[in-house]
Amino acid sequence: MWSIFADIIATGDTYPFAPETPKADALAYWAGPGVTSYVVEAEGRIVGMYKIVRNQPGLGSHVANASFMVARSYSGKGVGRHMGLDCLREARRRGFRAMQFNFVVSTNTAAVALWQSLGFAIVGTLPGVFRHKELGYVDAYVMYRSLEDIDLNPAPLTSQEA
Amino acid sequence: MWSIFADIIATGDTYPFAPETPKADALAYWAGPGVTSYVVEAEGRIVGMYKIVRNQPGLGSHVANASFMVARSYSGKGVGRHMGLDCLREARRRGFRAMQFNFVVSTNTAAVALWQSLGFAIVGTLPGVFRHKELGYVDAYVMYRSLEDIDLNPAPLTSQEA
Repeated sequence: MWSIFADIIATGDTYPFAPETPKADALAYWAGPGVTSYVVEAEGRIVGMYKIVRNQPGLGSHVANASFMVARSYSGKGVGRHMGLDCLREARRRGFRAMQFNFVVSTNTAAVALWQSLGFAIVGTLPGVFRHKELGYVDAYVMYRSLEDIDLNPAPLTSQEA
Repeated sequence: MWSIFADIIATGDTYPFAPETPKADALAYWAGPGVTSYVVEAEGRIVGMYKIVRNQPGLGSHVANASFMVARSYSGKGVGRHMGLDCLREARRRGFRAMQFNFVVSTNTAAVALWQSLGFAIVGTLPGVFRHKELGYVDAYVMYRSLEDIDLNPAPLTSQEA
């Protein structure tokens, strides 16, 4: 999981973590208090991971937040979509009413398109909040989806409670 | 500060903290790692407080986030506006380029109006993300303001580095 994280943040184009982020911060992000993380395995190793947390405490705790990372060697193979669908079902199963992404980098068009195809809407545009490694200050989106229509049929992936 | 916090969250209409939030959570919120908090004093006691944190790590750390609470007995006396102006200057002084509020409850019209009067725009609407004690699920706003036009003249308030 660390190698996927380190690979992803090295590109400086999708996550706010600086490329020099220490391993302890990655561990806190993926396995800190209140975090549940899930992995996808293929060919005997982890190729993708996602996490679910509540987006706010108490009176806002009915809305989930999630994050996703796919091993670069598995990019474009549907791992993100597979995890996205599983994540929506898992959040629904756990009783969340909706899911919100707080910081989808606008120039990460593959991610924006994926989430839109899975029913998320852009509900906010944050001007210049991400310092893109190559493009400089770019916008990020807040994306949101109700979970009320989510079908709970399929089985869960391998999961690890943090 | 605890008594102001406890009073505010008891109303269940402005902050996501549940009314039963323990003191330790309030302490972490106002004085945890990376948090700088400031207080306004009047008649020998604290009547308002605000905090500034970075809203994201690394590549998003040029945007500040802030939170405000005013003692209920001092509500409507301009303490919020005073702190808001000071907060904008302080964030600018510290080098932030912009300020973002992630969760302004839409029915808290006094707060929304105050922030709009101080130059903030609603850049996102989060559907039903706050469970209001009396009104049920209501929207919250994401509000944003550039700090590039902020005048740094006036002196700071009493400040406490957490």
